[in-house]
Amino acid sequence: MTAIRKFEKPLGMRDSFPLINEKKEKVREIGRLFLRSRGFDFIKTPTVEYYETIGKASAIADAALFKLVDRQGETLVLRPDMTTPIVRVATSKLLNEQNPLRLAYFANVFRAQEQEGGRPAEFEQMGVELFGDTSVYADAEMIITADELLNELGILKHRLTVGHAGLLHSILCSYTDNETQVHELSSYLVEKNIVGFEEAIRLSNLGDFKETKLLAFIDQASNVKSIDDLKPFINPENADQYKMFFYLKELSLLLESSSLSEKVTYDLTLTSEMSYYTGMLFEVFASGSGFAVGNGGRYDGLLEAFDSQVGATGFGLRVDRLLEVMAQVSVDEPHALLLFDEESYGNAVKKAKELRLAGIRTTIQLASSVELEEEYTKKFTKVYSMTAGGGENV
Amino acid sequence: MTAIRKFEKPLGMRDSFPLINEKKEKVREIGRLFLRSRGFDFIKTPTVEYYETIGKASAIADAALFKLVDRQGETLVLRPDMTTPIVRVATSKLLNEQNPLRLAYFANVFRAQEQEGGRPAEFEQMGVELFGDTSVYADAEMIITADELLNELGILKHRLTVGHAGLLHSILCSYTDNETQVHELSSYLVEKNIVGFEEAIRLSNLGDFKETKLLAFIDQASNVKSIDDLKPFINPENADQYKMFFYLKELSLLLESSSLSEKVTYDLTLTSEMSYYTGMLFEVFASGSGFAVGNGGRYDGLLEAFDSQVGATGFGLRVDRLLEVMAQVSVDEPHALLLFDEESYGNAVKKAKELRLAGIRTTIQLASSVELEEEYTKKFTKVYSMTAGGGENV
Repeated sequence: MTAIRKFEKPLGMRDSFPLINEKKEKVREIGRLFLRSRGFDFIKTPTVEYYETIGKASAIADAALFKLVDRQGETLVLRPDMTTPIVRVATSKLLNEQNPLRLAYFANVFRAQEQEGGRPAEFEQMGVELFGDTSVYADAEMIITADELLNELGILKHRLTVGHAGLLHSILCSYTDNETQVHELSSYLVEKNIVGFEEAIRLSNLGDFKETKLLAFIDQASNVKSIDDLKPFINPENADQYKMFFYLKELSLLLESSSLSEKVTYDLTLTSEMSYYTGMLFEVFASGSGFAVGNGGRYDGLLEAFDSQVGATGFGLRVDRLLEVMAQVSVDEPHALLLFDEESYGNAVKKAKELRLAGIRTTIQLASSVELEEEYTKKFTKVYSMTAGGGENV
Repeated sequence: MTAIRKFEKPLGMRDSFPLINEKKEKVREIGRLFLRSRGFDFIKTPTVEYYETIGKASAIADAALFKLVDRQGETLVLRPDMTTPIVRVATSKLLNEQNPLRLAYFANVFRAQEQEGGRPAEFEQMGVELFGDTSVYADAEMIITADELLNELGILKHRLTVGHAGLLHSILCSYTDNETQVHELSSYLVEKNIVGFEEAIRLSNLGDFKETKLLAFIDQASNVKSIDDLKPFINPENADQYKMFFYLKELSLLLESSSLSEKVTYDLTLTSEMSYYTGMLFEVFASGSGFAVGNGGRYDGLLEAFDSQVGATGFGLRVDRLLEVMAQVSVDEPHALLLFDEESYGNAVKKAKELRLAGIRTTIQLASSVELEEEYTKKFTKVYSMTAGGGENV
């Protein structure tokens, strides 16, 4: 054990000390009660999965995976997301018992970091997945549930940005010449690099009509007041495209009927590095954090990779980012300390029992084991010194 | 993705389905409330630690460690226990702020399995550690806390076996010729192989006196009615040995004063593969499980490896084994289902809000997305069919 290493943690790994841990516990408790009340059942999956299945299907870059080799020589990964493991459980077992199926989770996921840049290599997500319902109501339920969960956590100042991965792809296809160009343009949108997108169009030799349409689209699509604003980019003779456009309109009506209009913005340039999103997708932002606190969407394509056609939609929130934007959780709970000596041990045990029954956290402690009494006692809200020399109450 | 692998998990890895997960959640909730009420603060540490520090210090066999190499080329391990990471946190930071220090945790730990033999490669532990108090009261607090926590979980039929790693080692030293012999005899005790122990003595050429003493000791020590039964094996001129003997007597008096005599057995042959135990150690057994549901003890030596002399004692329980012995947790909670169609969506949302406010879990579901209605609805305790064709209540 080299001296320099003894107290260190691997890159991007963090300890959660008591105060922050209690806040996280509060988030878990509120989230659990809320999601269960809405009919979601919680499950857990292993921390470690096969690379060949979960690792590759997860759509997380290979370099960000923590890989290991087991005693049988198989390559494993620390789960990089929870959606893919839950799809494994749902398609292999739970959908046979219940369909549609509503599942929820709290889980740590892992992303290897190249350098210490403040990004965590392990972080906690809570989320839900709804399998077996391809209707617009299922997608609306995800957005509404995310919104209400944030309210429940006291994060009232939040916004939801809604897009549609399938419709975006279809429109990009309409105004380009091949899939390579679509892919290039999409990758600028994943990075939210609008300038790069516009540059790429100007350098593309797509011809005046397509270039003008794409530039108009990118200008319009990121700030849609009404879904009808997108109409000029929709080809009514393209049945799939028209269906997706109409789907988005229906979705916006459902969100309006749930009084979400004020909080929802539509952005058809929204896309994701998670290549499995095929339909509606959304991001959640909260006042106080520059990053999205969560995101979700429809990922029917991922189910197909697991031989299932039933479709799925879901969302996940990052617990660390929720904590950043949550109002301070009060930690001023009463915590009594009973300092005893050999003679007063029995009395201290009795007194502790009374205090705990009254709902007060109570630590009992042999006084002579405390070296710096003043330092030690100041963390408690009330101190009973039950030693021969001490008064009852410091 | 080969077809055979698509739905498989790595060796020894398990999914927790909703029912079992709710039971675990109940254990966590009870444990958290109870341990916090007694003044323990919960912390979390990373799933991944350095092999050089935590991996080697953990006293878990190297072959049972899940090892991986990070992007910087460092060898990491999935934490094989929680005691060592908590010692890292306590000695590097928290003990500077509070001493004595009471910490608690819920965490998954990892043990690589060589073959599928029903043993989990990942399992959950809950436990506590008390740093900075080398008194017998600290050790008594651990045993009493473990006992009361089991009561709190409704596991009333349980027993605690208490030994002393330091005193056992000292007695074995007294009646052998060298440390190699002590090590050999100890390893039989780790396996609880009394026959092997006796064989080894007979083959040892230690001479009549030592052999007779050791055979008498092994006969007596595993079933001690009173600590005084051990007196014939104690050398009063060996100050350390006498001190440990006296310590065990004091401990037994404290446990007696807490009405634990009925549940506690003393077994001086008790030892552990965890080589860091230096003083009192104990195991917890519950009616209904052949394995210990938990264990603990004093491990001052491990703190010294982290440059600290303040001492530590603690215990951990295995959540999977607790579940095996716990009374069935009732899962008959009401869960309503509202089946709606396009026309009744608004009414369904309103009705769901009312039911949830009344504390009833409520799922709302578009009826036309349900393929096998009879199959689907039977999981709910009450079904409201709000479609144009349906009556209100099925």
